[in-house]
Amino acid sequence: MTGSTTSPFTADDYRARMERAAAAAADAGLAGLLVAPGPDMVWLTGYAPPVTERLTLLVLAPGRTPVLVVPTLEAPDAAKAPGAPAMSLRDWTDGKDPYAATAALLAVDGRFGISDNAWAMHLLGLQRALPGTSYASLTEALPMLRGVKDAAELRLLAAAGAAADRTFEEIRKVTFGGRRESEVAADLAALLRQYGHEQVDFTIVASGPNGADPHHEAGDSVIQRGDMVVLDFGGLMDGYGSDTSRTVHVGEPTDEERRVHDLVREAQEAGFRAVRPGVACQDVDRAARAVIADAGYGEYFIHRTGHGIGVTTHEPPYMIEGERQPLVPGMCFSVEPGVYLPGRFGVRIEDIVTVTEDGGRRLNTTTREMVIVE
Amino acid sequence: MTGSTTSPFTADDYRARMERAAAAAADAGLAGLLVAPGPDMVWLTGYAPPVTERLTLLVLAPGRTPVLVVPTLEAPDAAKAPGAPAMSLRDWTDGKDPYAATAALLAVDGRFGISDNAWAMHLLGLQRALPGTSYASLTEALPMLRGVKDAAELRLLAAAGAAADRTFEEIRKVTFGGRRESEVAADLAALLRQYGHEQVDFTIVASGPNGADPHHEAGDSVIQRGDMVVLDFGGLMDGYGSDTSRTVHVGEPTDEERRVHDLVREAQEAGFRAVRPGVACQDVDRAARAVIADAGYGEYFIHRTGHGIGVTTHEPPYMIEGERQPLVPGMCFSVEPGVYLPGRFGVRIEDIVTVTEDGGRRLNTTTREMVIVE
Repeated sequence: MTGSTTSPFTADDYRARMERAAAAAADAGLAGLLVAPGPDMVWLTGYAPPVTERLTLLVLAPGRTPVLVVPTLEAPDAAKAPGAPAMSLRDWTDGKDPYAATAALLAVDGRFGISDNAWAMHLLGLQRALPGTSYASLTEALPMLRGVKDAAELRLLAAAGAAADRTFEEIRKVTFGGRRESEVAADLAALLRQYGHEQVDFTIVASGPNGADPHHEAGDSVIQRGDMVVLDFGGLMDGYGSDTSRTVHVGEPTDEERRVHDLVREAQEAGFRAVRPGVACQDVDRAARAVIADAGYGEYFIHRTGHGIGVTTHEPPYMIEGERQPLVPGMCFSVEPGVYLPGRFGVRIEDIVTVTEDGGRRLNTTTREMVIVE
Repeated sequence: MTGSTTSPFTADDYRARMERAAAAAADAGLAGLLVAPGPDMVWLTGYAPPVTERLTLLVLAPGRTPVLVVPTLEAPDAAKAPGAPAMSLRDWTDGKDPYAATAALLAVDGRFGISDNAWAMHLLGLQRALPGTSYASLTEALPMLRGVKDAAELRLLAAAGAAADRTFEEIRKVTFGGRRESEVAADLAALLRQYGHEQVDFTIVASGPNGADPHHEAGDSVIQRGDMVVLDFGGLMDGYGSDTSRTVHVGEPTDEERRVHDLVREAQEAGFRAVRPGVACQDVDRAARAVIADAGYGEYFIHRTGHGIGVTTHEPPYMIEGERQPLVPGMCFSVEPGVYLPGRFGVRIEDIVTVTEDGGRRLNTTTREMVIVE
């Protein structure tokens, strides 16, 4: 993903985002924000440059015009970015010191927020150029910078979720038994693209014992009759993310498989019902986890309950113990508890949920009952 | 690219690389190396985890067993990495502090080399957990860590180069005039895959005035009869990179087009001829640049002459003014001068070159004469 993204947003939309971000930085006591290529830059400017050792950095400071520091040879593309009219470009040529050029834009003793995924090499360059400055990652300093989605973003996330749901409705009709996980994964990817995704980020197909590894990738394993199969898939559609999981069964499940699936479904429901404005993120995790722990499976739920979604499929806020951030209408995140029985099988059920004034609203609405496949 | 790569290397190969890296760190006065997911980790361990906010970090210290700090839910995949037998795994669970866990492995006042592309978030976490430590990017501290390729790596790079050359031999037969750049780019990607690439990194097709932007991506522009067209394509085959550029012409070129093409070809030849052990990287750049400057086109050669290649298509050493690193047999890099005439056209010619005891050896061998296409 390089060059300008196809964006449904205007230069004014990006200007407003940059102004809000700079104001939030000031409120947080920061002298400014340093934004690296990646999701922060895409969200703020619509610009998605190649990620290389050459420094590209957006400098936002309260009350000042945003400046994009950019390698000379990327400047023509940067100038075409949807947010370019709201920034001034400062280019630097191979062989020059980009950190000195950037330092000239920064308060010498300021504290700055910097994109989580900025390269360590670039941070070290800035720390050396301006020893009096200090830094905090954006997730630490402004965790909710991209966390609350506006109406246009919610429409895009809902559309991506609907496309993922259509994908599930089709995949449940295909043959699982006797095929490789990787073949079903290829079906998932093709369907996501068919229904409008421009980027497929993951297509987990984890059958039988593989399902006990939450991040098992689809592999050469042949799916067996009698297997539980965890499906977890998503990507980007018009620049916004989808991510949903369902666990299906090839033929009739055992009583235990059905019981564990029901348990995860109840936990997912409990997590969903906990969603309302003002509730802490950790309480969504606790609500889901309590259901599983109470049934004696607590040690088999080995990850957090959810993560935010937006211009990426994986971002703050995190539904995790210790996260006291209160939910705010417009936040979007996954609710995805699971139970993983080593050497046997796993179950995960995941919907994207958005916070409304009245509680949660699911952006995935396929059945959460266990689906029997061929 | 996640999970374990298909690797032609054994656990012993990876163990030897880790030992060499730790020894090089000691020689450079470092207490150790901190290796992030990405090319450094792939090269040292064969492990290519998903890149997320969850910390995965390989800690190498002289005389100690390498330790891979890894999120619990990635640990099963990490244990399957080709280099896993040579490391011990230390996993951490969502909700715990991974920086504290890593800090326990580090000298409290040590200086460490850290992967260029480690996340700023993770570096800040380590700096906070151990305020007495200091850091240097690996490119600064050990720029040649992956720079000198062994015989097996050279065979893989030569094979990737040969596949890129076959791609050029086929693409020169297709119709250019009247088709969109993006269609020719799709042909390039399909050919690279057909000839064995598992990953296509770039397929630049820059026609007419677009050629004057060195990093123009293939777009909707329709290629015209009479256009110069810069082709620059590459990716990974069996984990090692290809990268070659040729500039073709649709129909007969003008005298000026031919003259500029000849000039760039001479500059590329001069850069290539400068390659031999002991010569500084910057002298390769100077040799190519002098040819273009002497002809009065110096201001139109707006990038460095080359970059290293290995498990990535873009890495040290850089052939650039100011880089005094002497060439060593086994180094591999591009020699790719260009001339870019704004609003008119561009020319770039690029081969991957490896340093031998006797001078340079090209890993791309298609004709550097201007090719006329339909």
